Parts: sequence; C-alpha cells; structure tokens
Amino acid sequence: MTSKHLIEYAQASADVRAVYDDIKRVRQVEDVNNFWKCLAAHPPTLRRTWESLKEVMQPGALDPLTKELIYVAVSVTNNCPYCIASHLAAARRAGMTDAMFGELQAVVGMANETNRLATGYRVPLDAALQD
Amino acid sequence: MTSKHLIEYAQASADVRAVYDDIKRVRQVEDVNNFWKCLAAHPPTLRRTWESLKEVMQPGALDPLTKELIYVAVSVTNNCPYCIASHLAAARRAGMTDAMFGELQAVVGMANETNRLATGYRVPLDAALQD
Amino acid sequence: MTSKHLIEYAQASADVRAVYDDIKRVRQVEDVNNFWKCLAAHPPTLRRTWESLKEVMQPGALDPLTKELIYVAVSVTNNCPYCIASHLAAARRAGMTDAMFGELQAVVGMANETNRLATGYRVPLDAALQD
Amino acid sequence: MTSKHLIEYAQASADVRAVYDDIKRVRQVEDVNNFWKCLAAHPPTLRRTWESLKEVMQPGALDPLTKELIYVAVSVTNNCPYCIASHLAAARRAGMTDAMFGELQAVVGMANETNRLATGYRVPLDAALQD
Amino acid sequence: MTSKHLIEYAQASADVRAVYDDIKRVRQVEDVNNFWKCLAAHPPTLRRTWESLKEVMQPGALDPLTKELIYVAVSVTNNCPYCIASHLAAARRAGMTDAMFGELQAVVGMANETNRLATGYRVPLDAALQD
Amino acid sequence: MTSKHLIEYAQASADVRAVYDDIKRVRQVEDVNNFWKCLAAHPPTLRRTWESLKEVMQPGALDPLTKELIYVAVSVTNNCPYCIASHLAAARRAGMTDAMFGELQAVVGMANETNRLATGYRVPLDAALQD
Repeated sequence: MTSKHLIEYAQASADVRAVYDDIKRVRQVEDVNNFWKCLAAHPPTLRRTWESLKEVMQPGALDPLTKELIYVAVSVTNNCPYCIASHLAAARRAGMTDAMFGELQAVVGMANETNRLATGYRVPLDAALQD
Repeated sequence: MTSKHLIEYAQASADVRAVYDDIKRVRQVEDVNNFWKCLAAHPPTLRRTWESLKEVMQPGALDPLTKELIYVAVSVTNNCPYCIASHLAAARRAGMTDAMFGELQAVVGMANETNRLATGYRVPLDAALQD
Repeated sequence: MTSKHLIEYAQASADVRAVYDDIKRVRQVEDVNNFWKCLAAHPPTLRRTWESLKEVMQPGALDPLTKELIYVAVSVTNNCPYCIASHLAAARRAGMTDAMFGELQAVVGMANETNRLATGYRVPLDAALQD
Repeated sequence: MTSKHLIEYAQASADVRAVYDDIKRVRQVEDVNNFWKCLAAHPPTLRRTWESLKEVMQPGALDPLTKELIYVAVSVTNNCPYCIASHLAAARRAGMTDAMFGELQAVVGMANETNRLATGYRVPLDAALQD
Repeated sequence: MTSKHLIEYAQASADVRAVYDDIKRVRQVEDVNNFWKCLAAHPPTLRRTWESLKEVMQPGALDPLTKELIYVAVSVTNNCPYCIASHLAAARRAGMTDAMFGELQAVVGMANETNRLATGYRVPLDAALQD
Repeated sequence: MTSKHLIEYAQASADVRAVYDDIKRVRQVEDVNNFWKCLAAHPPTLRRTWESLKEVMQPGALDPLTKELIYVAVSVTNNCPYCIASHLAAARRAGMTDAMFGELQAVVGMANETNRLATGYRVPLDAALQD
C-alpha cells in the first residue's frame, strides 16, 4: 500500500496484467509508471482509473498537449510533486517547449495570485458575468 | 475594502483612472470588471496586477485560449467562484466551445482525483522521471 | 447542524451558556457570533475551540493585530468567506487600516503566486537554507 | 526547467544578470537563491516576479517582519516546503524569534482548524459582519 | 454549462436519460440532483462519473456510512458548499447522527490544524513510520 | 524550530516531559513521535495540541478506526506526507486492512474529482438540500 510496495508485472494477477498490457499498448511504452504499480494494490481502482484516464485524455475538442498543460496546471496548484513530474514528461512528449512551460508557469502563478485577491476583496459578481 | 466599496471611474483618482483607461483600451470594453473596482482600493496593487496580467496573458508560445483554459483550471481547483465566472467568460470570448469546456472539466476533475491517489499511495518517483 | 440551527442563549444548555458568557466577557460583546452558535451543536467542540482560540490569540510575542493579520491571510488562502469576514472585522478592531489591508492582500497574493512558481519549477533547497 | 537546471550568473544572459545584480544589491547578498536561478529559465517571469516582490515586500503600512510572517503563514497553509524554508530564513533575518514562530504556528494551525469548522457547519454570515 | 443550464429529463437525450434512470433506480429517488443535471452538459462525463461513483460508493470493506463520512471530510477540507450539502444529506440517510457529525467536524478541524503544524515545523519522518 | 531540532526526553523541560509521559501512557508507546518532539519547541502548543487530540480522537459516537480514516482522508487531501504516514500507521493499528485503505483512497480520489466538477459547473443547490 506504500511506496515500498510496487507490484511488478511478474507478480501481478491476471486482471492487473490486463491493465498493464493495455497501458503499454496505448502508450507504446515498455513498462508502466510507478503510479500504476501502486494503484495495483487495489485492482478495481487501477482498472477504473486507467479506463477513465484513457477516455478523458484522448484527443477530442481539446488536443492532447492542451489537456496535459491543464493537468500540469492542476498538479502544480495542488502541489503534487509526483503528478508534476509525470505530467511534465507527458506534456513534453506531446510537444510542450521550454517557452510554453515558462508561460504555463506564469499563468498558473498569476491565477493563484488573482484568485486570492478576488477572494480577499470579496469581489461581487458583475451583472454581465451572471448567467 | 469590501464588496460594497467598488470604486467607479467618476470617483477614481488619476492613477486609478489611468489603469481603468488602459484596461478598457486593451480589452475593448466600455467598463472594467468589479475585480478592478475592488483592487482600486489599493492603487499600487491595481496597477501592478494589471501590468502583470497584461504581460502574462498576451499571445506568446501559448495562444490566448489555452491561457484562459489554464486560468479556469486553476480557478476551479482553488474553488474561486468569481474567478471561474470571469475567466469562463474570457475563455468563451477566446473561442472555448461547450465541448471544450466539457473536456476541460473532465481533465480538471481527473487530475484532482489522480493527484490524491498519487499522494495517498506515496508513489515513489520513477527513475525515468527524474532529471 | 446547519446554518438554520443557530443555538441562541435562551435555548442553550448550562455548559453552552458558560462558554457564551466567557466569550462575551473576554470580547466585551453583547452577543456571540454565529460561528459559536453553530459550534454549540457539539458542546465539547464549542468549549475546546473557544479555550484554544482564547489561548492562541492572547497577546504574547506577537501582538493581537499581527495575529489577526495572519488569521486573515490563512482564511483568504483557504477561501473561507465567513472566516475572512469575521477576522477582517477583528483585525479592524485591533487597528488594521485600509492601507494595511491593501498590503496584506498584496503579500497574500504574491505568496500564493511564488508558492506555485517554486512548486512548478521544483526548486531544490539551497544548502544555505537547510538546517 | 527543472531542479537540475539552475542558471548560474556565469551562464546567464545580460537581462538575467541585470535581475540577479539587482537582487544582490537590494538584499545585500553574494548570490541569489535557487528560486531565482530556476525562474531564470523564463526571463520575463524572473524580471516580473522580482519587480513585484521588491515592491510588495518593501516597508509600508506593514513592517518587513509582519510581511514575512504573513508570507510564512500562506506558505505553510499551501504546503510549499521551499517557500517555508526560504521565508522562515527571511523572517528570522527580519527579527522573528523562536517565541514568535511558535505563536505564528499556533495561529496558522488554529485558523486552519476554525476555517474548516466554519465551512462544515456552513455558518451564516452575521448581520453585523456584512458590509 | 452553468447553473442556469440544468438538463431536465424531458429535454434529455437518450444516453442522458439512461444515466438518469439508473441513478433513480439505484438510489430509489424520483428525480436526480442538480449535480447530474449539470454534468449532463457533457454526456461522457455524466456517464463516467456516475459509473465510477456507483462502483466506489457501493458497500465493501467499508460500509456506506463510513464512505459518506469520508466524502464529507474531503468536501469540507476542499470547501465545496454543494458537495458538503449533498453528502451531508447522503450521510444522514446512511445513519449519521448529530453526535457523529459533531465528532466528524472535530476530527476534520483537528486534522487540518495538525497538518499545518507538521508542515510548518517540517517534522522529519520517524524511522518507525518509514516503509 | 526545524527538523534538526527534535527535543528528546533527556533535554526536555518538566512541562514538556509531563506531556511526553501522558502521550506514552495513553498510547502505550516507549517514545513519542517526532511530531511531538518538534511541537515541544513551543510548550503551550505541545500541551494544547495533545490535550485536544486526546479528547477529539477518543472513542465516542464514532469509533477510533473511523476517526483515523477521516484523519487520513484530510491529510491526503491536504497533501501532508508526514500526517499521511503517521495516521496510516495509526489507522492500521486501529484495524484498517489493505482492502479498507484501497476503498478509502478510491473515495478520497472520487470526492476530490466531484468536488471540482460541482465547483466548475457552479451547480445550484437543490431545494431539497437546503435547510
């Protein structure tokens, strides 16, 4: 249940292996990340999380790079070091340049600042912003 | 200093009016949002915040729509109702469709879920993710 | 247990009244805030919270105004509207001016921005900062 | 873009060096913290963040120590280890004693507790607190 | 996409109605909550969220009441008013008494306080706690 | 005041030793956790925190295991590594199995996801949920 307990393919049950195989197939990787090897401690969560992530992150009205940038923005705001590292890597694979990351950080920082200014000043919603 | 104290153009000092004028010029709007009318309670914060926001949100390696989507993602994660409303409006002006917002919400929700799964399972960083 | 269930002095039990009386005595107020009237739903929490707050907020190495400014800063960062309103009122009673609030907001906003920049850039701790 | 990529003065561009020089001049230090060496990956963010921080943290209606205490309170609430370490060091340089830090921590802890009590009990705003 | 746009059964598409019908069947309710009527703006998110929630909240190693108490604890910590209201109602249906809620709030408040104390004091992990 | 400064029993003052002794007595442990050895830097916070924790975590309308599960849920949501480790250990001592932890994580993850979906869609409170 802890970082010590990574479930490798060799020791994995059939249902866990099936998820690992699908991750490797979809992502074209040789092995799955530790995130999945930890989730494997609870197979239903492993399967459900992978199926949801696969559906949510597929190309749609938003392209894969935009989705990864949003993922990084949330992970930075939540201060999740593992999530930042893994999704920065995914964002780079999807085409994020250093310049894009610099601007992403600038927007995330500015949003966190103005969120607090709006909250502290208890800004009333403009009539034009109501729906 | 509170939602009751919105500083309108008519009562504003010269330095506050200068910022309001620049916001109206850059955004091509007839009046500024309540956010700015609250910040005007502290002119240095009004000026600094506008100058920073203008610089950060200008087109660059990331287009304006992508920046607004990131802004909304942070505002939703921080649970800032005013920020969500104002940046959703900005995102729509920048071209966000209902389908894009649906996918944005799905990614933000998924990121918040997996952030907690990674944190709770204390997932160790993969060697491949270290730099 | 909800906003509808405020326990007024008249309906309060003896132990709840004892806390209300102490709050009114210490704060020199005619009635207690709704916060306490809601906590009264669970008398042990009402008593423990008041005893702790009374001890923590008393003058010490930090003066009452500084403590209230810190309280507001945390409440804004946590986005707790009730806490912001009640502690802004307390901060004003303790001497916070509009200029002080303007600077408090600026620091809170800046701290929230740089916290995310440090997190997103995964800044390694300087040797000089380690202890 | 990562902790591996600290931009030292020797390798820095002219605009980055100009910011480093100003930080060293204002803070009277021999070298800048890693925070700045990471931000240097995006020069506009480095410059804007330093100019804003210099303006926000200068003495005003609030003294430098009070501003640093507020900065630490936000950094602890946001759980930003680097920010806590760097601003605790700055707070000590500004005169924070162990007794002051002990009380700061007590207030931050108490504020985080009561923020959740107010939120969970959905405390309605007192008429006297409305403005 | 906003609070104004609740998709009622009458206007819902076949796939949305299928989810609404399943929610009404599983929960034995006459109509679904606004949460679902908002999610219906993006049918894939409506379906995926309901399927996941149905799986996660079903009785297992933890009973339904314990799961709802955990849900409320997270919602209070995240300061999500709608989530607090809806899951408090679910927790009461599952058997939560006023005394249980009082203790839940006390634990949530205490956990939020000690989380910050541990973070601010940068407590090193005990050897006995490592795995 | 930092992770380097753990106050051991041998160097502790009489009032600190009194708290350590009570912790060891109540928890039937040979030594106290580093959390307490850090809090000892500010004896009033050490005493108050222990007295409150002892009262809040004692068996009541909620059993000790349920209270520890709630504590872990909050600590994961707040991303406090030390708190997660120490309260996971306490939860295991109280009887938490791997299956229970798997379901706890699933609920915490789901709650964090739906909290953001409700916030982003700005779901209006159902009449039936109002009180």
